Amino acid sequence: MRAVCVLGTGLIGGSLMRAAARAGREVWGTAASEATAAAAVADGFDVGTDTDAALTRAAEADALVVVAVPLTALEPVLRRVDAVAPTCRLTDAVSVKVAVADAVAEFAPRARYVGGHPMAGTTESGWAAGDADLFNEAAWVVAADDGLDLDVWRDVAELAWACGARVVPAAIDEHDIAVARISHLPHLFAAVLASVGAGEQGDDLALALSAGSFADGTRVAGTRPELVLAMCEGNRASLLAAVDDALGRLGAMRGALASTGGLAATVRAGHEARMRWASTREPLELPVALDGENVLAELRELGRRGDVVGKA
Amino acid sequence: MRAVCVLGTGLIGGSLMRAAARAGREVWGTAASEATAAAAVADGFDVGTDTDAALTRAAEADALVVVAVPLTALEPVLRRVDAVAPTCRLTDAVSVKVAVADAVAEFAPRARYVGGHPMAGTTESGWAAGDADLFNEAAWVVAADDGLDLDVWRDVAELAWACGARVVPAAIDEHDIAVARISHLPHLFAAVLASVGAGEQGDDLALALSAGSFADGTRVAGTRPELVLAMCEGNRASLLAAVDDALGRLGAMRGALASTGGLAATVRAGHEARMRWASTREPLELPVALDGENVLAELRELGRRGDVVGKA
Repeated sequence: MRAVCVLGTGLIGGSLMRAAARAGREVWGTAASEATAAAAVADGFDVGTDTDAALTRAAEADALVVVAVPLTALEPVLRRVDAVAPTCRLTDAVSVKVAVADAVAEFAPRARYVGGHPMAGTTESGWAAGDADLFNEAAWVVAADDGLDLDVWRDVAELAWACGARVVPAAIDEHDIAVARISHLPHLFAAVLASVGAGEQGDDLALALSAGSFADGTRVAGTRPELVLAMCEGNRASLLAAVDDALGRLGAMRGALASTGGLAATVRAGHEARMRWASTREPLELPVALDGENVLAELRELGRRGDVVGKA
Repeated sequence: MRAVCVLGTGLIGGSLMRAAARAGREVWGTAASEATAAAAVADGFDVGTDTDAALTRAAEADALVVVAVPLTALEPVLRRVDAVAPTCRLTDAVSVKVAVADAVAEFAPRARYVGGHPMAGTTESGWAAGDADLFNEAAWVVAADDGLDLDVWRDVAELAWACGARVVPAAIDEHDIAVARISHLPHLFAAVLASVGAGEQGDDLALALSAGSFADGTRVAGTRPELVLAMCEGNRASLLAAVDDALGRLGAMRGALASTGGLAATVRAGHEARMRWASTREPLELPVALDGENVLAELRELGRRGDVVGKA
């Protein structure tokens, strides 16, 4: 089983270390602060603050390096990868994929990089919030664009399986569009809905009358703004397309309301879409032999159908 | 205790009959069909299908008449009120208030009308779904515009209290604006979010990756479209104002995303608003002596502060 070097020990990196260790992997990593490293060591993990040392060991062990730092902290880490372990097996756990791929191409271009996005989280953060079960049954997107190293692809998939996750292959631009639509746009809608609903200070009638529709529709506006900003701002182009799609639909709805007063088109389309979501079938777990010329295209197709890759 | 005549025995009317009867009131009513009337009779309630007979009895008993039919079915019922019990004590249970007040002014102008909106509901409908506990702790808005009959106001408030609800006084236009913002707009946002998120048939990647933010943000898009259309379309003017407020905020956000890429203003405002909602204090229950010149203005102020009227 391949060893794993985790750079960054926040909620995701810390959970990943715990899950990989439990699965019997050799795991080490680095934290951003001495205090976090000490907390991880106290919990029995091999964590320091010397990135170069961790990467040197990764190069020697031919380990899989997982970058689990925020998008905004990526550049210096990738520069150390390029300096110390330039051709290492590399993946990441950042929630957008095109921006990370661009950064890798710029700062660690020789790395054998296959992007990843374990789709799990809680409202907590930091090493202490980590949980070996965080990825159980969660989708773990693995980049499946043409030209990727299939050997590293298998490493990333095996790590995801070891953590209990479902492997969802996707082209990185399609991933970013999908998360813009089903995660980032919902966060912006929740923010706007909360602002409109709360109205002016001193007029608390609306808040007093609010019930389930407002509570649910604004729930994720309670997320820490820094987290929302990091994921949304890192996905600018795809998010802009999703926002424009939404604005087009809202504009048509506004026109209908102002002219005929009719909202049936909007409400019925939304109801159908929600019903389609609610009836989404369980993904099929399809084993894929990770070789052959068209395997990445095949993987992307499988992900578009909503299925997941099973262990071969 | 004043007798209660309930016209309409769906979820709201049926629950109201059960709750009022449990509180010791004399209650009778009418259903739209023989089958529903028979079901109510089988449950021990005095329900027929003859509206004129029910209203004649209401006039004789000086009962409080509660119109609990959908907005679209209001006109014929109000015409019977005007013909049979023209000056009766009248309230309603419809979810918008300006449109009902306009209809009463047109079709039953002599009635002593004080509008009401018990804010409770389930995804179920019909007599069988009724529940004497439906209004427990729920807000029951009672119209508090100048010129209303304080004697009938007390009747409506006492019925709400008898049903276990909290009495929230509000001007009818302020009520309609508030529910547009915290109930009707959330339903439209959920519909648009579901449509954008579900995307095209055959591309199921986004649905496969959807998690809590999408599930919560689209939940009320699962409501029966007829119910959503009835409440939203009946509140056209106020809803249009809420939609324009939201579109203004979304447009500013879109501009920021496209130009600087920054979303902090949107996300932080939404977070603050949600936190303000989450920290809404429990309403104070303030007894109000229902007489005096300015009592209705006083009641409206109390409602604007998010408080409720306690039994005097």
